[in-house]
Amino acid sequence: MAYELHYWPCIQGRGEFVRLALEAAGADYLDVTREDGIDDMLERLGAPPRPAFAPPFLRDGDLVIGQASAILLHLGPRLGLVGESEADRIWTHQIQLTIADAVAEVHETHHPIATSLFYEDQKPEAARRAAAFRDERIPKFLGWLERVLGANPAGPRHLVGDRLSYADLSLFQLVEGLAYAFPQATERALAATPMVVALHRRVVSLPRVAAYLSSDRRLPFSEDGIFRRYPELDG
Amino acid sequence: MAYELHYWPCIQGRGEFVRLALEAAGADYLDVTREDGIDDMLERLGAPPRPAFAPPFLRDGDLVIGQASAILLHLGPRLGLVGESEADRIWTHQIQLTIADAVAEVHETHHPIATSLFYEDQKPEAARRAAAFRDERIPKFLGWLERVLGANPAGPRHLVGDRLSYADLSLFQLVEGLAYAFPQATERALAATPMVVALHRRVVSLPRVAAYLSSDRRLPFSEDGIFRRYPELDG
Repeated sequence: MAYELHYWPCIQGRGEFVRLALEAAGADYLDVTREDGIDDMLERLGAPPRPAFAPPFLRDGDLVIGQASAILLHLGPRLGLVGESEADRIWTHQIQLTIADAVAEVHETHHPIATSLFYEDQKPEAARRAAAFRDERIPKFLGWLERVLGANPAGPRHLVGDRLSYADLSLFQLVEGLAYAFPQATERALAATPMVVALHRRVVSLPRVAAYLSSDRRLPFSEDGIFRRYPELDG
Repeated sequence: MAYELHYWPCIQGRGEFVRLALEAAGADYLDVTREDGIDDMLERLGAPPRPAFAPPFLRDGDLVIGQASAILLHLGPRLGLVGESEADRIWTHQIQLTIADAVAEVHETHHPIATSLFYEDQKPEAARRAAAFRDERIPKFLGWLERVLGANPAGPRHLVGDRLSYADLSLFQLVEGLAYAFPQATERALAATPMVVALHRRVVSLPRVAAYLSSDRRLPFSEDGIFRRYPELDG
Protein backbone atom coordinates (compact mmCIF):
# COMPACT_ATOMS: atom_id res chain seq x y z
CA MET A 1 0.00 0.00 0.00
CA ALA A 2 1.28 3.48 -0.80
CA TYR A 3 2.48 5.74 1.98
CA GLU A 4 0.25 8.77 2.49
CA LEU A 5 2.02 12.02 3.30
CA HIS A 6 -0.14 14.77 4.75
CA TYR A 7 1.35 18.24 4.69
CA TRP A 8 0.56 21.77 3.61
CA PRO A 9 0.33 21.65 -0.18
CA CYS A 10 1.99 24.94 -1.10
CA ILE A 11 5.25 24.90 0.83
CA GLN A 12 8.28 22.68 1.23
CA GLY A 13 8.39 23.21 4.99
CA ARG A 14 9.10 20.33 7.31
CA GLY A 15 7.27 17.97 4.97
CA GLU A 16 10.10 18.32 2.48
CA PHE A 17 12.44 16.23 4.63
CA VAL A 18 9.95 13.38 4.31
CA ARG A 19 9.29 13.97 0.60
CA LEU A 20 13.02 13.84 -0.13
CA ALA A 21 13.36 10.46 1.58
CA LEU A 22 10.36 9.03 -0.25
CA GLU A 23 11.59 10.40 -3.58
CA ALA A 24 15.22 9.34 -3.13
CA ALA A 25 14.05 5.80 -2.37
CA GLY A 26 11.62 5.68 -5.28
CA ALA A 27 8.85 4.88 -2.80
CA ASP A 28 5.22 4.60 -3.74
CA TYR A 29 3.54 7.48 -1.97
CA LEU A 30 0.67 9.87 -2.21
CA ASP A 31 1.16 13.54 -1.40
CA VAL A 32 -2.44 13.73 -0.24
CA THR A 33 -3.13 17.45 -0.01
CA ARG A 34 -1.53 18.17 -3.37
CA GLU A 35 -3.89 15.68 -4.98
CA ASP A 36 -7.04 16.33 -3.02
CA GLY A 37 -6.72 19.54 -1.02
CA ILE A 38 -6.36 19.95 2.71
CA ASP A 39 -9.77 18.80 3.99
CA ASP A 40 -8.71 15.23 4.64
CA MET A 41 -5.53 16.40 6.37
CA LEU A 42 -7.35 18.80 8.64
CA GLU A 43 -9.90 16.15 9.51
CA ARG A 44 -7.28 13.54 10.36
CA LEU A 45 -5.04 15.99 12.21
CA GLY A 46 -5.88 15.71 15.85
CA ALA A 47 -8.11 12.68 15.32
CA PRO A 48 -8.03 9.87 17.87
CA PRO A 49 -6.51 7.57 18.83
CA ARG A 50 -3.14 9.21 18.10
CA PRO A 51 -3.60 12.87 17.18
CA ALA A 52 -0.62 14.63 15.64
CA PHE A 53 0.24 18.06 17.01
CA ALA A 54 0.85 19.50 13.54
CA PRO A 55 1.57 18.45 9.94
CA PRO A 56 3.44 16.67 8.51
CA PHE A 57 2.10 13.26 9.37
CA LEU A 58 2.40 10.00 7.50
CA ARG A 59 -0.09 7.20 7.18
CA ASP A 60 1.48 3.78 6.77
CA GLY A 61 -1.41 1.33 6.86
CA ASP A 62 -2.94 1.61 10.31
CA LEU A 63 -0.10 3.70 11.67
CA VAL A 64 -0.27 7.49 11.72
CA ILE A 65 3.02 9.16 12.61
CA GLY A 66 3.67 12.86 13.14
CA GLN A 67 6.90 14.83 13.65
CA ALA A 68 9.16 14.80 10.57
CA SER A 69 12.05 13.25 12.50
CA ALA A 70 9.86 10.45 13.85
CA ILE A 71 8.51 9.82 10.34
CA LEU A 72 12.08 9.45 9.07
CA LEU A 73 12.93 7.17 11.98
CA HIS A 74 10.05 4.97 10.85
CA LEU A 75 10.76 5.18 7.14
CA GLY A 76 14.55 4.83 7.30
CA PRO A 77 14.75 1.03 7.52
CA ARG A 78 11.75 0.55 5.21
CA LEU A 79 13.26 2.72 2.47
CA GLY A 80 16.82 1.47 2.88
CA LEU A 81 17.89 4.93 4.00
CA VAL A 82 19.64 3.99 7.22
CA GLY A 83 22.25 1.43 8.29
CA GLU A 84 21.37 -1.98 9.65
CA SER A 85 22.88 -1.66 13.11
CA GLU A 86 21.10 -0.12 16.07
CA ALA A 87 24.15 2.11 16.59
CA ASP A 88 23.90 3.49 13.05
CA ARG A 89 20.16 4.01 13.39
CA ILE A 90 20.31 6.02 16.60
CA TRP A 91 23.25 8.07 15.31
CA THR A 92 21.43 8.86 12.09
CA HIS A 93 18.43 9.92 14.15
CA GLN A 94 20.60 12.08 16.40
CA ILE A 95 21.93 13.90 13.34
CA GLN A 96 18.39 14.33 12.04
CA LEU A 97 17.24 15.84 15.34
CA THR A 98 20.13 18.30 15.26
CA ILE A 99 19.25 19.31 11.71
CA ALA A 100 15.65 19.73 12.89
CA ASP A 101 16.91 22.04 15.63
CA ALA A 102 18.69 24.11 12.98
CA VAL A 103 15.50 24.28 10.93
CA ALA A 104 13.52 25.43 13.96
CA GLU A 105 16.05 28.21 14.47
CA VAL A 106 15.66 29.25 10.84
CA HIS A 107 11.95 29.68 11.50
CA GLU A 108 12.75 31.85 14.50
CA THR A 109 14.75 34.24 12.33
CA HIS A 110 11.59 35.54 10.67
CA HIS A 111 9.21 34.74 13.55
CA PRO A 112 11.13 35.52 16.74
CA ILE A 113 8.03 36.74 18.59
CA ALA A 114 5.03 34.69 17.52
CA THR A 115 4.01 32.27 14.79
CA SER A 116 0.58 33.87 14.92
CA LEU A 117 1.95 37.24 13.77
CA PHE A 118 3.16 38.18 10.32
CA TYR A 119 6.83 38.77 9.67
CA GLU A 120 5.94 42.39 9.09
CA ASP A 121 4.80 42.62 12.71
CA GLN A 122 8.16 41.48 14.10
CA LYS A 123 10.75 42.93 11.74
CA PRO A 124 13.02 44.71 14.23
CA GLU A 125 13.23 41.59 16.39
CA ALA A 126 13.78 39.46 13.29
CA ALA A 127 16.69 41.66 12.24
CA ARG A 128 18.42 41.15 15.58
CA ARG A 129 17.69 37.44 15.66
CA ALA A 130 18.86 36.91 12.08
CA ALA A 131 22.14 38.69 12.71
CA ALA A 132 22.96 36.32 15.55
CA PHE A 133 21.81 33.35 13.51
CA ARG A 134 24.02 34.34 10.57
CA ASP A 135 27.10 35.09 12.65
CA GLU A 136 26.93 32.32 15.21
CA ARG A 137 24.48 29.59 14.38
CA ILE A 138 24.96 28.93 10.65
CA PRO A 139 28.72 28.41 11.14
CA LYS A 140 28.06 26.32 14.23
CA PHE A 141 25.55 23.95 12.63
CA LEU A 142 27.43 23.59 9.34
CA GLY A 143 30.70 23.28 11.23
CA TRP A 144 29.25 20.45 13.29
CA LEU A 145 28.10 18.63 10.15
CA GLU A 146 31.60 19.08 8.71
CA ARG A 147 33.05 17.57 11.88
CA VAL A 148 30.64 14.63 11.64
CA LEU A 149 31.74 13.98 8.06
CA GLY A 150 35.40 14.27 8.95
CA ALA A 151 34.98 11.92 11.91
CA ASN A 152 33.14 9.21 9.95
CA PRO A 153 35.43 6.15 10.04
CA ALA A 154 34.02 5.10 6.66
CA GLY A 155 35.06 8.40 5.11
CA PRO A 156 33.41 11.74 4.42
CA ARG A 157 31.18 10.73 1.54
CA HIS A 158 28.24 10.20 3.89
CA LEU A 159 27.27 11.31 7.38
CA VAL A 160 26.85 7.73 8.61
CA GLY A 161 28.87 4.78 7.36
CA ASP A 162 29.40 4.25 3.65
CA ARG A 163 25.84 4.54 2.43
CA LEU A 164 23.21 7.15 1.74
CA SER A 165 20.93 7.86 4.70
CA TYR A 166 18.01 10.16 5.27
CA ALA A 167 20.41 12.37 7.24
CA ASP A 168 22.40 13.01 4.04
CA LEU A 169 19.19 14.06 2.31
CA SER A 170 18.33 16.35 5.20
CA LEU A 171 21.79 17.91 5.07
CA PHE A 172 21.12 18.67 1.41
CA GLN A 173 17.80 20.32 2.26
CA LEU A 174 19.29 22.34 5.11
CA VAL A 175 22.10 23.65 2.93
CA GLU A 176 19.72 24.34 0.07
CA GLY A 177 17.36 26.23 2.34
CA LEU A 178 20.08 28.23 4.06
CA ALA A 179 21.55 29.17 0.69
CA TYR A 180 18.11 30.36 -0.39
CA ALA A 181 17.34 32.34 2.74
CA PHE A 182 20.80 33.68 3.62
CA PRO A 183 22.85 33.49 0.42
CA GLN A 184 25.73 35.67 1.57
CA ALA A 185 26.04 34.30 5.08
CA THR A 186 25.72 30.73 3.86
CA GLU A 187 28.35 31.16 1.18
CA ARG A 188 30.73 32.45 3.83
CA ALA A 189 30.03 29.54 6.14
CA LEU A 190 30.27 26.93 3.37
CA ALA A 191 33.74 28.19 2.48
CA ALA A 192 34.86 26.54 5.72
CA THR A 193 32.95 23.28 5.21
CA PRO A 194 34.12 21.64 1.97
CA MET A 195 32.88 18.18 2.93
CA VAL A 196 29.38 19.54 3.51
CA VAL A 197 29.52 21.20 0.09
CA ALA A 198 30.67 17.97 -1.53
CA LEU A 199 27.91 15.91 0.09
CA HIS A 200 25.31 18.48 -0.91
CA ARG A 201 26.53 18.23 -4.49
CA ARG A 202 26.51 14.44 -4.38
CA VAL A 203 22.90 14.37 -3.20
CA VAL A 204 21.83 16.76 -5.97
CA SER A 205 23.29 14.41 -8.54
CA LEU A 206 21.57 11.25 -7.30
CA PRO A 207 19.38 10.23 -10.25
CA ARG A 208 16.10 10.01 -8.33
CA VAL A 209 16.79 13.21 -6.40
CA ALA A 210 17.77 15.05 -9.59
CA ALA A 211 14.59 13.86 -11.29
CA TYR A 212 12.53 14.99 -8.33
CA LEU A 213 14.18 18.40 -8.10
CA SER A 214 13.47 19.10 -11.75
CA SER A 215 9.86 17.89 -11.52
CA ASP A 216 6.84 19.91 -10.54
CA ARG A 217 6.55 17.77 -7.43
CA ARG A 218 9.35 19.88 -5.99
CA LEU A 219 7.77 23.06 -4.78
CA PRO A 220 9.87 26.22 -4.94
CA PHE A 221 11.15 27.94 -1.84
CA SER A 222 8.94 30.88 -0.96
CA GLU A 223 8.23 33.44 1.71
CA ASP A 224 5.41 31.25 3.05
CA GLY A 225 7.79 28.46 4.03
CA ILE A 226 10.43 27.99 6.70
CA PHE A 227 13.36 29.17 4.58
CA ARG A 228 12.48 32.70 3.50
CA ARG A 229 14.53 35.13 1.51
CA TYR A 230 14.17 38.53 3.10
CA PRO A 231 17.24 40.39 1.85
CA GLU A 232 17.30 42.56 4.95
CA LEU A 233 17.92 39.44 7.06
CA ASP A 234 21.01 38.38 5.11
CA GLY A 235 24.33 40.17 5.07
CA MET B 1 27.81 -1.38 33.35
CA ALA B 2 26.33 1.86 34.63
CA TYR B 3 24.97 4.40 32.20
CA GLU B 4 26.98 7.61 32.13
CA LEU B 5 25.00 10.80 31.76
CA HIS B 6 26.96 13.88 30.71
CA TYR B 7 25.25 17.20 31.25
CA TRP B 8 25.80 20.59 32.84
CA PRO B 9 26.06 19.95 36.59
CA CYS B 10 24.17 22.96 37.94
CA ILE B 11 20.90 22.97 36.00
CA GLN B 12 18.03 20.63 35.27
CA GLY B 13 17.88 21.67 31.62
CA ARG B 14 17.36 19.08 28.93
CA GLY B 15 19.35 16.57 30.93
CA GLU B 16 16.51 16.38 33.42
CA PHE B 17 14.31 14.45 31.00
CA VAL B 18 16.98 11.75 30.93
CA ARG B 19 17.62 11.86 34.69
CA LEU B 20 13.92 11.39 35.37
CA ALA B 21 13.80 8.27 33.20
CA LEU B 22 16.89 6.80 34.84
CA GLU B 23 15.58 7.61 38.32
CA ALA B 24 12.04 6.38 37.70
CA ALA B 25 13.43 3.06 36.46
CA GLY B 26 15.88 2.70 39.34
CA ALA B 27 18.69 2.43 36.79
CA ASP B 28 22.34 2.27 37.70
CA TYR B 29 23.80 5.50 36.34
CA LEU B 30 26.52 8.01 36.96
CA ASP B 31 25.79 11.72 36.65
CA VAL B 32 29.36 12.32 35.54
CA THR B 33 29.79 16.07 35.84
CA ARG B 34 28.17 16.21 39.27
CA GLU B 35 30.69 13.67 40.53
CA ASP B 36 33.80 14.78 38.69
CA GLY B 37 33.28 18.23 37.14
CA ILE B 38 32.85 19.12 33.51
CA ASP B 39 36.32 18.41 32.08
CA ASP B 40 35.50 14.90 30.94
CA MET B 41 32.22 16.07 29.38
CA LEU B 42 33.85 18.89 27.46
CA GLU B 43 36.57 16.57 26.22
CA ARG B 44 34.14 13.92 25.03
CA LEU B 45 31.73 16.45 23.53
CA GLY B 46 32.58 16.74 19.90
CA ALA B 47 34.99 13.82 20.00
CA PRO B 48 35.10 11.40 17.08
CA PRO B 49 33.74 9.17 15.81
CA ARG B 50 30.26 10.45 16.75
CA PRO B 51 30.48 13.97 18.16
CA ALA B 52 27.40 15.28 19.92
CA PHE B 53 26.29 18.81 19.04
CA ALA B 54 25.60 19.70 22.68
CA PRO B 55 24.98 18.12 26.08
CA PRO B 56 23.22 16.03 27.25
CA PHE B 57 24.79 12.87 25.93
CA LEU B 58 24.73 9.38 27.32
CA ARG B 59 27.41 6.71 27.28
CA ASP B 60 26.09 3.18 27.19
CA GLY B 61 29.13 0.96 26.78
CA ASP B 62 30.62 1.82 23.40
CA LEU B 63 27.63 3.90 22.34
CA VAL B 64 27.55 7.66 22.81
CA ILE B 65 24.15 9.21 22.14
CA GLY B 66 23.24 12.89 22.10
CA GLN B 67 19.89 14.68 21.90
CA ALA B 68 17.66 14.09 24.91
CA SER B 69 14.86 12.63 22.77
CA ALA B 70 17.24 10.19 21.07
CA ILE B 71 18.63 9.17 24.45
CA LEU B 72 15.10 8.39 25.64
CA LEU B 73 14.39 6.48 22.43
CA HIS B 74 17.42 4.34 23.26
CA LEU B 75 16.71 3.99 26.98
CA GLY B 76 12.96 3.41 26.74
CA PRO B 77 13.04 -0.33 26.00
CA ARG B 78 16.06 -0.92 28.24
CA LEU B 79 14.42 0.74 31.24
CA GLY B 80 10.95 -0.68 30.64
CA LEU B 81 9.65 2.83 30.02
CA VAL B 82 7.94 2.24 26.68
CA GLY B 83 5.51 -0.30 25.26
CA GLU B 84 6.60 -3.43 23.46
CA SER B 85 5.06 -2.74 20.06
CA GLU B 86 6.71 -0.70 17.36
CA ALA B 87 3.52 1.37 17.13
CA ASP B 88 3.69 2.26 20.83
CA ARG B 89 7.37 3.08 20.59
CA ILE B 90 7.09 5.49 17.69
CA TRP B 91 4.02 7.14 19.23
CA THR B 92 5.81 7.60 22.56
CA HIS B 93 8.71 9.14 20.67
CA GLN B 94 6.40 11.43 18.72
CA ILE B 95 4.95 12.72 22.00
CA GLN B 96 8.45 13.20 23.37
CA LEU B 97 9.48 15.21 20.31
CA THR B 98 6.44 17.45 20.72
CA ILE B 99 7.26 18.01 24.39
CA ALA B 100 10.82 18.84 23.29
CA ASP B 101 9.39 21.42 20.88
CA ALA B 102 7.49 22.98 23.78
CA VAL B 103 10.67 23.06 25.86
CA ALA B 104 12.55 24.76 23.02
CA GLU B 105 9.84 27.41 22.90
CA VAL B 106 10.18 27.96 26.63
CA HIS B 107 13.85 28.72 26.05
CA GLU B 108 12.88 31.23 23.37
CA THR B 109 10.74 33.16 25.85
CA HIS B 110 13.83 34.42 27.68
CA HIS B 111 16.24 34.18 24.74
CA PRO B 112 14.25 35.27 21.67
CA ILE B 113 17.25 36.95 20.04
CA ALA B 114 20.39 34.95 20.82
CA THR B 115 21.59 32.27 23.19
CA SER B 116 24.90 34.11 23.30
CA LEU B 117 23.31 37.18 24.90
CA PHE B 118 22.06 37.56 28.44
CA TYR B 119 18.35 37.81 29.15
CA GLU B 120 19.01 41.37 30.24
CA ASP B 121 20.12 42.16 26.68
CA GLN B 122 16.84 40.99 25.14
CA LYS B 123 14.17 41.91 27.65
CA PRO B 124 11.77 43.87 25.42
CA GLU B 125 11.75 41.06 22.86
CA ALA B 126 11.36 38.51 25.63
CA ALA B 127 8.33 40.33 26.97
CA ARG B 128 6.61 40.17 23.57
CA ARG B 129 7.59 36.57 22.99
CA ALA B 130 6.49 35.47 26.45
CA ALA B 131 3.08 37.11 26.06
CA ALA B 132 2.41 35.10 22.91
CA PHE B 133 3.76 31.96 24.53
CA ARG B 134 1.50 32.38 27.56
CA ASP B 135 -1.62 33.20 25.59
CA GLU B 136 -1.27 30.82 22.67
CA ARG B 137 1.34 28.17 23.13
CA ILE B 138 0.93 26.99 26.73
CA PRO B 139 -2.77 26.29 26.16
CA LYS B 140 -1.99 24.68 22.81
CA PHE B 141 0.68 22.29 24.08
CA LEU B 142 -1.18 21.37 27.28
CA GLY B 143 -4.42 21.09 25.34
CA TRP B 144 -2.78 18.67 22.93
CA LEU B 145 -1.50 16.52 25.79
CA GLU B 146 -5.02 16.55 27.25
CA ARG B 147 -6.37 15.38 23.91
CA VAL B 148 -3.77 12.61 23.74
CA LEU B 149 -4.80 11.41 27.20
CA GLY B 150 -8.48 11.57 26.31
CA ALA B 151 -7.91 9.66 23.08
CA ASN B 152 -5.89 6.86 24.65
CA PRO B 153 -7.96 3.70 24.12
CA ALA B 154 -6.47 2.29 27.34
CA GLY B 155 -7.72 5.28 29.32
CA PRO B 156 -6.31 8.60 30.49
CA ARG B 157 -4.01 7.32 33.21
CA HIS B 158 -1.05 7.33 30.81
CA LEU B 159 -0.19 8.97 27.52
CA VAL B 160 0.49 5.63 25.80
CA GLY B 161 -1.32 2.42 26.61
CA ASP B 162 -1.81 1.34 30.22
CA ARG B 163 1.74 1.70 31.50
CA LEU B 164 4.20 4.36 32.55
CA SER B 165 6.40 5.61 29.73
CA TYR B 166 9.15 8.17 29.49
CA ALA B 167 6.61 10.47 27.85
CA ASP B 168 4.59 10.52 31.08
CA LEU B 169 7.73 11.53 32.97
CA SER B 170 8.42 14.25 30.42
CA LEU B 171 4.86 15.54 30.75
CA PHE B 172 5.50 15.83 34.48
CA GLN B 173 8.69 17.80 33.89
CA LEU B 174 7.06 20.09 31.32
CA VAL B 175 4.17 20.89 33.67
CA GLU B 176 6.52 21.34 36.61
CA GLY B 177 8.73 23.67 34.61
CA LEU B 178 5.87 25.71 33.18
CA ALA B 179 4.37 26.08 36.64
CA TYR B 180 7.72 27.33 37.90
CA ALA B 181 8.34 29.78 35.07
CA PHE B 182 4.81 30.98 34.37
CA PRO B 183 2.78 30.21 37.49
CA GLN B 184 -0.23 32.35 36.65
CA ALA B 185 -0.48 31.44 32.97
CA THR B 186 0.10 27.76 33.68
CA GLU B 187 -2.54 27.66 36.41
CA ARG B 188 -5.03 29.13 33.95
CA ALA B 189 -4.14 26.61 31.26
CA LEU B 190 -4.20 23.65 33.63
CA ALA B 191 -7.74 24.54 34.68
CA ALA B 192 -8.77 23.26 31.23
CA THR B 193 -6.63 20.10 31.30
CA PRO B 194 -7.68 17.96 34.28
CA MET B 195 -6.21 14.78 32.84
CA VAL B 196 -2.81 16.42 32.48
CA VAL B 197 -3.05 17.58 36.09
CA ALA B 198 -3.96 14.09 37.25
CA LEU B 199 -1.09 12.46 35.37
CA HIS B 200 1.35 15.05 36.73
CA ARG B 201 0.16 14.22 40.23
CA ARG B 202 0.43 10.49 39.59
CA VAL B 203 4.04 10.83 38.44
CA VAL B 204 4.95 12.87 41.52
CA SER B 205 3.66 10.09 43.74
CA LEU B 206 5.59 7.25 42.10
CA PRO B 207 7.86 6.01 44.89
CA ARG B 208 11.12 6.26 42.96
CA VAL B 209 10.22 9.65 41.50
CA ALA B 210 9.13 10.96 44.90
CA ALA B 211 12.40 9.76 46.43
CA TYR B 212 14.36 11.42 43.66
CA LEU B 213 12.49 14.71 43.91
CA SER B 214 13.17 14.96 47.63
CA SER B 215 16.85 14.01 47.24
CA ASP B 216 19.74 16.35 46.58
CA ARG B 217 20.14 14.68 43.20
CA ARG B 218 17.18 16.78 42.04
CA LEU B 219 18.55 20.20 41.28
CA PRO B 220 16.26 23.16 41.88
CA PHE B 221 14.84 25.21 39.04
CA SER B 222 16.84 28.38 38.57
CA GLU B 223 17.37 31.34 36.31
CA ASP B 224 20.31 29.54 34.69
CA GLY B 225 18.13 26.77 33.28
CA ILE B 226 15.50 26.49 30.59
CA PHE B 227 12.50 27.15 32.81
CA ARG B 228 13.14 30.56 34.39
CA ARG B 229 10.94 32.56 36.68
CA TYR B 230 11.08 36.15 35.58
CA PRO B 231 7.90 37.61 37.08
CA GLU B 232 7.67 40.18 34.31
CA LEU B 233 7.25 37.36 31.77
CA ASP B 234 4.25 35.83 33.54
CA GLY B 235 0.83 37.38 33.80
